[in-house]
Amino acid sequence: MSDHICSAGCNHFSHLNDPDLMGEFAEARKNLRTAIGGTPSAGTLGLAGVTQRALPSKKAGEQVSHYYVPANDKTVHWGFFSKKMDPLLKVESGDYVTIETVTHHSNDDIDRMVKGDKGVEAIFHWDAKSKAVDRRGMGPMDHPLGAGGGIGVHVCTGPIFINGAEPGDVLEVRIVDTMQRPSGNPDYRGKTFGSNAASNWGFHYNNLITEPKGREVITIYEVDAKGEQSWAKAVYNYRWTPQTDPFGVVHPIIDYPGVPVDKNSIKPNYDVLKGYEIPVRPHFGMIGVAPVEADIVSSIPPGYTGGNFDNWRMGKGATAFFPVAVAGGMFSVGDPHASQGDAELCGTAIECSLTGLFQFILHKKADLPGTKLYGLDYPLLETASELVLHGFSLPNYLKELGDNAETKILEKSSLDTAMTDAFNKTRRFLMDTRDLTEDEAISLISVSVDFGITQVVDGNWGVHAIIKKAIFPK
Amino acid sequence: MSDHICSAGCNHFSHLNDPDLMGEFAEARKNLRTAIGGTPSAGTLGLAGVTQRALPSKKAGEQVSHYYVPANDKTVHWGFFSKKMDPLLKVESGDYVTIETVTHHSNDDIDRMVKGDKGVEAIFHWDAKSKAVDRRGMGPMDHPLGAGGGIGVHVCTGPIFINGAEPGDVLEVRIVDTMQRPSGNPDYRGKTFGSNAASNWGFHYNNLITEPKGREVITIYEVDAKGEQSWAKAVYNYRWTPQTDPFGVVHPIIDYPGVPVDKNSIKPNYDVLKGYEIPVRPHFGMIGVAPVEADIVSSIPPGYTGGNFDNWRMGKGATAFFPVAVAGGMFSVGDPHASQGDAELCGTAIECSLTGLFQFILHKKADLPGTKLYGLDYPLLETASELVLHGFSLPNYLKELGDNAETKILEKSSLDTAMTDAFNKTRRFLMDTRDLTEDEAISLISVSVDFGITQVVDGNWGVHAIIKKAIFPK
Repeated sequence: MSDHICSAGCNHFSHLNDPDLMGEFAEARKNLRTAIGGTPSAGTLGLAGVTQRALPSKKAGEQVSHYYVPANDKTVHWGFFSKKMDPLLKVESGDYVTIETVTHHSNDDIDRMVKGDKGVEAIFHWDAKSKAVDRRGMGPMDHPLGAGGGIGVHVCTGPIFINGAEPGDVLEVRIVDTMQRPSGNPDYRGKTFGSNAASNWGFHYNNLITEPKGREVITIYEVDAKGEQSWAKAVYNYRWTPQTDPFGVVHPIIDYPGVPVDKNSIKPNYDVLKGYEIPVRPHFGMIGVAPVEADIVSSIPPGYTGGNFDNWRMGKGATAFFPVAVAGGMFSVGDPHASQGDAELCGTAIECSLTGLFQFILHKKADLPGTKLYGLDYPLLETASELVLHGFSLPNYLKELGDNAETKILEKSSLDTAMTDAFNKTRRFLMDTRDLTEDEAISLISVSVDFGITQVVDGNWGVHAIIKKAIFPK
Repeated sequence: MSDHICSAGCNHFSHLNDPDLMGEFAEARKNLRTAIGGTPSAGTLGLAGVTQRALPSKKAGEQVSHYYVPANDKTVHWGFFSKKMDPLLKVESGDYVTIETVTHHSNDDIDRMVKGDKGVEAIFHWDAKSKAVDRRGMGPMDHPLGAGGGIGVHVCTGPIFINGAEPGDVLEVRIVDTMQRPSGNPDYRGKTFGSNAASNWGFHYNNLITEPKGREVITIYEVDAKGEQSWAKAVYNYRWTPQTDPFGVVHPIIDYPGVPVDKNSIKPNYDVLKGYEIPVRPHFGMIGVAPVEADIVSSIPPGYTGGNFDNWRMGKGATAFFPVAVAGGMFSVGDPHASQGDAELCGTAIECSLTGLFQFILHKKADLPGTKLYGLDYPLLETASELVLHGFSLPNYLKELGDNAETKILEKSSLDTAMTDAFNKTRRFLMDTRDLTEDEAISLISVSVDFGITQVVDGNWGVHAIIKKAIFPK
């Protein structure tokens, strides 16, 4: 448990310069690359391939561990957060966890994103008799589209229970490093792929100007797996055609996650975005803890405990702070992206599997007054130079809308209310944690804070406020 | 007239490395600093202190001029655009003009921002018998608040007529350099000041959380006049108190521009934002050409011909492109800012007088197909690394709303429709000027274009789309 609030560059519980940790992560990277889905060799084998290894502590009496969580059918839950789940892993504040995350769009190109990758194959396994991960979404198990109804779509790795975390505390999650997941198919050795789906939930969907209207289009992008190139390029695109899943349900549109796309049913078009180079900014679109308001919650709308807030700044070197709403926090992460623009306009980013090295630090409620975390009731993102506060159309849509909140929020989405929420949070942050008057806060916001559009596709639309840390008194 | 479309770094008509031009601007800076409001000594004296000097041409047969336009009561119009005005100056495509712009908030601190500055004193002159610039806004001359009614508030320098410009053409305006206007008061030698007004038109105004509600607050900021420091700091703030103007009209709120604030009527609070440093990003909040839809138009809502679009990227090194709507374009510039955040939340930036060196380049309609300017019907901003497209709640509010558009637009402002407009423009830009299919454009937007909130205080709210030029094929 922390005894102070960490600031940027703080060395609290930090093993960033620890050769053991860095060596482990390097080993994890190597393992991942050479034996996708295999069990890392070092450490104690636990549930579903989770391994643990103690790191030498820097403080007497402290014991810091590094866990490795592979992604497979036993370590993921699909399309929902739930405070009722059994945690995959229990960690102490200060521990590190390397977590594999897998994109729910992998089946958009089975050859490039599933084949030969044991972990991804295990997650997406689906034949006429059964599927490995049956529930996909928070809906009923007998939903006509499939179990869970696809009301919630993201493959989430977790949940991770942070020992000692209680409602009112704040969980700090540092993203120490990220790496792209290489294709497991020898035909694509050394390459990583991602899928961008211009989908029925996109902002553009009812506003297409060329025929045929109502189409959905998948664009497959290639990213350098070694991270040596800073840009992605399009490989080909295709229009979604009705897909029949292994249980025999026909999906005329993208209405259920993980439906395998029959490559013989689509027409690939390789003449796409020739020469265009997309800057790669790997990040986790969905990251957060479980809310308390319901037993099971769709992974789609973001909310006060984080989740699918889809901010591309949530990458290597960034830190997120989440208000803990249930015992242990119950952290999950997914929806990995290679790149996204602010707005995520067509409904998705370059959806691309990533592995991250995370450190968890727990801040107890009693320690929060007088710090930047006081009163935190939304996901706060921090980078080396910025604090990013997240406003939503409704700040706590679960509480405000009650039953069927995940449906009702679709009618309530507005950037206008998200802007108001982002302003309210920024003002309160400056007044409560910087001891400014309301007049000082408002002037400072107007002359120096940049408001941007996080996303307009996740049901609960987002506006973020960027405070440059350089403005603060030195 | 240009014979090609300039791209970034293009040397077309460029005298940026011309020692004569740079020498002139250095001289202008020096003159401005040493004799605020005085007439620059070089060149031929014209109307209201406007001077002209020929520059040596780089091409045989071309004759490029550099004009200097001081700001005074004869060179500004206040609170409106109008195609019916007599132009202040006629220039050729390729010409340079150094233009002084003065903030309409100068009278928020007369000692620091008016006193001793002959040009600003001339603009703000107002006694019991007369005011130097009577019309302020597009309203009736017998409006109870004052002539023009304050329906439009910005002190605009211009208009400048570009010879040969016709509807359908595009006017390129390059901002070669900017400088802060130093205080003319010897007591504040070497300093520049600006005013931030948290005003009744601010986004926060009906959402204050501390008493007294309904207050307006002015914060005076200091900026280094030499541009040697990159940050501004607050000096003091005060609450607006009812001000009686020299004609005897009482202004309980900020409802008319340029009302002199009686310093004995307000209570300065010097304990404000101690130690905070605001990054300075000097720019012109209002810049554009006259629309065709009406004879006189409020300067407040931005629109398809530019105007008060309030993007802080409109500073040194940036280029703007405006669709020409009337003969000569009729370019005006004003609303200078030392710094602003995206959103301009409280209604104003650090409103701070600036002088800019501009170059005008005319692109004829026939030359536009196949270039980035094809079909341009909104203000396009370009920096070294970005293209910034401006969406509005209504793309052409004058045409769409007709009579009393400046009032009706207040009820139509929404970021949701501005987001749609920004998307529509970005898609069309990529399809029409980059020859992409709709599917390519939409995918590219989703994975690489950042949407931000330009402003929520100018009646016609803005969302901008930022395209990074690095994505384009090399």
